[in-house]
Amino acid sequence: MSKGTLYIVSAPSGAGKSSLISALLENNPTYAMKVSVSHTTRDMRPGEVNGVHYNFVAVEEFKALIDEGAFLEFAEVFGNYYGTSRPWIEENLDKGIDVFLDIDWQGARQIRKQMPEARSIFILPPSRPELERRLNTRGQDSEEVIAKRMSEARSEISHYNEYDYVIVNDDFDVAVMDMKAILRAERLKEAKQAVKHANMLDCLLAEE
Amino acid sequence: MSKGTLYIVSAPSGAGKSSLISALLENNPTYAMKVSVSHTTRDMRPGEVNGVHYNFVAVEEFKALIDEGAFLEFAEVFGNYYGTSRPWIEENLDKGIDVFLDIDWQGARQIRKQMPEARSIFILPPSRPELERRLNTRGQDSEEVIAKRMSEARSEISHYNEYDYVIVNDDFDVAVMDMKAILRAERLKEAKQAVKHANMLDCLLAEE
Repeated sequence: MSKGTLYIVSAPSGAGKSSLISALLENNPTYAMKVSVSHTTRDMRPGEVNGVHYNFVAVEEFKALIDEGAFLEFAEVFGNYYGTSRPWIEENLDKGIDVFLDIDWQGARQIRKQMPEARSIFILPPSRPELERRLNTRGQDSEEVIAKRMSEARSEISHYNEYDYVIVNDDFDVAVMDMKAILRAERLKEAKQAVKHANMLDCLLAEE
Repeated sequence: MSKGTLYIVSAPSGAGKSSLISALLENNPTYAMKVSVSHTTRDMRPGEVNGVHYNFVAVEEFKALIDEGAFLEFAEVFGNYYGTSRPWIEENLDKGIDVFLDIDWQGARQIRKQMPEARSIFILPPSRPELERRLNTRGQDSEEVIAKRMSEARSEISHYNEYDYVIVNDDFDVAVMDMKAILRAERLKEAKQAVKHANMLDCLLAEE
């Protein structure tokens, strides 16, 4: 069995990244895939499940994991730690499972450094007016709030060219099909196929 | 508009390469694509159309084109020349057309050297017994003839690992979908998308 692929997925708010990843995992019985579950030291909120939404750990444990080099990337946000566990991801990749990592461009850079074989996908909104509409979530946000969100979105978008693939999320179903095409093509890469079909290739190449 | 991609497609006899390429071109109204038409000095046969089956040229013309460096690759077979015209291919790629080049591993190596941006796909038969069945075309060939075809097929197959993608042609429709996924994913590569969506990206990234 060939290893799974780690997919780094980034996007500005309003590009529809989470919905795309959810749709992909729900409608794809063919391939084994999972979304990476981050480690965090923040408190569990009502409705959250340990191991599903996050792997909740104590601060001391998190710091010990940092010292062990167990995180592909981690960050401290408002006094809480968040990190991506390398053993968790490698365990799943070894089982042939594709793992999706929903992360910003800064996290993406850290991951690429440590796992250059990861593939990265950037999701774009279809136009500026549409992005502004999507960022005005309640239809009643102040111009200032929207401008701040736009500025953050622009900052994220400015890194699109660091990614292997770029998907424009205009028609949602088309964007899901784009994601599926990328996954399918990546599984057809020579190195993966050589492992998957090793016996058949041996047989084809045998002298008699 | 972003440039088209040159796809090198190789396979042993019996893998179904020609049928796959035909099916791809017939059933794909979305993308512009063409099969490369080779130059040759051999005589036109009944039913053949100049510019469709081959570009038929005189020996002196072919030799002049060799001297001009107009061929990505060429070979002499039984006293006739066959070659792949670089200007013809580049003209089509510049129009955004994907070009398919049906060629063996030796030709593929020459093309890769000159156009490293070309993508290459190797088509495999699903098993050795199935390959032997397909090579016994009339069901009544001698063991010796089949053994010779198998030996040629093995020689071609032994180069599968020089290709970017490998498709196993077991179920024909699945193999066509594999080809389509590769084409779709390649069009989602960052460099292609940056050109295709240049205006939109400028607009998204503009300060105000």
